[in-house]
Amino acid sequence: MITTDVAIIGAGPVGLFAVFECGLLRMRCHLIDYLPQPGGQLSEIYPKKPIYDIPAYPIVLAQELVNNLMKQTEPFKPTFTLGERVEKLTKVEERHFVLETNKGTQIQSKVVVIAGGLGVFEPRKPEISNITDFENGKGVEYIIPQPEIYRDKKIVIAGGGDSALDWTIYLSDIAKEIALVHRSENFRGVPDSVAKVTKRVKDGRIRMLLNSQVTDLDGNGKLEKVVVTNIKTNEKYEMEADYFLPLFGLSPKLGPIENWGLEIEKNAIKVNTEDYSTNIPGVYAIGDINTYTNKLKLILCGFHEAALMSHSAYKYIHPGIKYTMKYTTVSGIQGL
Amino acid sequence: MITTDVAIIGAGPVGLFAVFECGLLRMRCHLIDYLPQPGGQLSEIYPKKPIYDIPAYPIVLAQELVNNLMKQTEPFKPTFTLGERVEKLTKVEERHFVLETNKGTQIQSKVVVIAGGLGVFEPRKPEISNITDFENGKGVEYIIPQPEIYRDKKIVIAGGGDSALDWTIYLSDIAKEIALVHRSENFRGVPDSVAKVTKRVKDGRIRMLLNSQVTDLDGNGKLEKVVVTNIKTNEKYEMEADYFLPLFGLSPKLGPIENWGLEIEKNAIKVNTEDYSTNIPGVYAIGDINTYTNKLKLILCGFHEAALMSHSAYKYIHPGIKYTMKYTTVSGIQGL
Repeated sequence: MITTDVAIIGAGPVGLFAVFECGLLRMRCHLIDYLPQPGGQLSEIYPKKPIYDIPAYPIVLAQELVNNLMKQTEPFKPTFTLGERVEKLTKVEERHFVLETNKGTQIQSKVVVIAGGLGVFEPRKPEISNITDFENGKGVEYIIPQPEIYRDKKIVIAGGGDSALDWTIYLSDIAKEIALVHRSENFRGVPDSVAKVTKRVKDGRIRMLLNSQVTDLDGNGKLEKVVVTNIKTNEKYEMEADYFLPLFGLSPKLGPIENWGLEIEKNAIKVNTEDYSTNIPGVYAIGDINTYTNKLKLILCGFHEAALMSHSAYKYIHPGIKYTMKYTTVSGIQGL
Repeated sequence: MITTDVAIIGAGPVGLFAVFECGLLRMRCHLIDYLPQPGGQLSEIYPKKPIYDIPAYPIVLAQELVNNLMKQTEPFKPTFTLGERVEKLTKVEERHFVLETNKGTQIQSKVVVIAGGLGVFEPRKPEISNITDFENGKGVEYIIPQPEIYRDKKIVIAGGGDSALDWTIYLSDIAKEIALVHRSENFRGVPDSVAKVTKRVKDGRIRMLLNSQVTDLDGNGKLEKVVVTNIKTNEKYEMEADYFLPLFGLSPKLGPIENWGLEIEKNAIKVNTEDYSTNIPGVYAIGDINTYTNKLKLILCGFHEAALMSHSAYKYIHPGIKYTMKYTTVSGIQGL
């Protein structure tokens, strides 16, 4: 069992800065992140993207920001559990929490700080009653890691954005048959992709069904047919299909956090802005994962939240002890 | 008359970052500062001091931080009135404020943001009923810009800190007579200075009165005598004095801001943490000059406050218009 003062769920920029603020108050931190490296979205999704709104950085690359934050936390020697997702949070008593990851790692802490960003990105699913029967390799897939498996297959794609359009174009070259089903007559994708799809529809290489949606799935242990309903005329078509690919984009989800008894609002954790505490004493939420009146999902706001949280966490860990803040410009940094 | 969207009182780090946040929302800013250059205390008091607690800066020199903030505000072309102090704030009607400085400069704005840091540093004064009669060149002085005027004069210094001790030592070389009056028996100054003073007292070069304070001043148009009272025995002494120098340190004061009808608490402006607005609609207070539950006087907190303030100011200027935040990582920076 790993033991620490503060367990921080999420090793993005705000979780990292929390290590610094807690460290100034002599609290040790352990960070847990589902991603294989610290930095959160900045390192995983857009490491080379410039950021313009970090105070006193006219421009900074996302990964550079992460590197600087890592360097700033160094004196406080944070420890990490990476590539694991916290599944369970148990409050044994005040100042005694136990976290458990999907791989069974256990972390004991006095305080829990949730800095999970936008949470876990999960695919948006269409409302089809039996869709889960065909998930996990039985014909329904929401992301396309290996396009080659669709070669010479009968494919039905649903969606009206860039992802649906791009994959329809790409797979029309290798699939046996391909159909694109879209609820509206207008696409949200870039005009160039729309034009390409339209041309291939004219050429007979793509079948397009507008104002339509897939309403039923059928098959014996594996997908064989989809039922498409025209939402204007209510007419129904049956189509043979080896694969149904609903590509409606990814949506951030809180994941297991939703089941920890925290007050949730609009897919975020409600906090008290006096210290960014949640409804569970000893559990805080900072950064993009929390919500309050006028919340702005900016990294710089998470930094402020980390600072106020750390002072409250100190009081929670040391009830009755008064702490007088020392300014780092006066006393410098004493590592842990 | 200078006209702008947002008048920012104080050109320290938080005032400068407010220019950036307001700029993203297409609001122009004009800054007014009593100091001759932007940067506030960072540039004026400790430009070469390292700061360790700016997020993603493991270390940064105060002036370097100011330079980076100046660069970040550049696209939004802020304008400045420097070396002037705002004396008057008049709210003509909603979205129409007029500010006036000590030099008569007038600034008209739709919103006022007070980012005045710790305010103006003023000397702590002893409680002597007629002390003001002898201020302004008539014998009582709180700071010592020109020590030469004390040559061959009779000086009484009051205080027990480094400033009182150091000036007593320095002036004992040039004054005709010098006395140090201190309320306690213990000095707060560094041991070396205390030892030096003690030695000169023994040598008869300094007269020291402990457990004592100056309780009365006397003179005809100019200081001639001070009355010192021993606070243990209540005995009174009269001493001839050309100058009385109470050196009790400097204390930050709000100055003229105190008279603008703002809710003040503990020498700071009370704000609503939902948007850092004051009790006067259209007037905000951000950074060290504001107060709220759990306030931390950290630059990084002022940055967050500037962000939330700017969105509220936008709504105040444009009632009924909904603004959708664009992330700078997506859309970049469009200057003004």
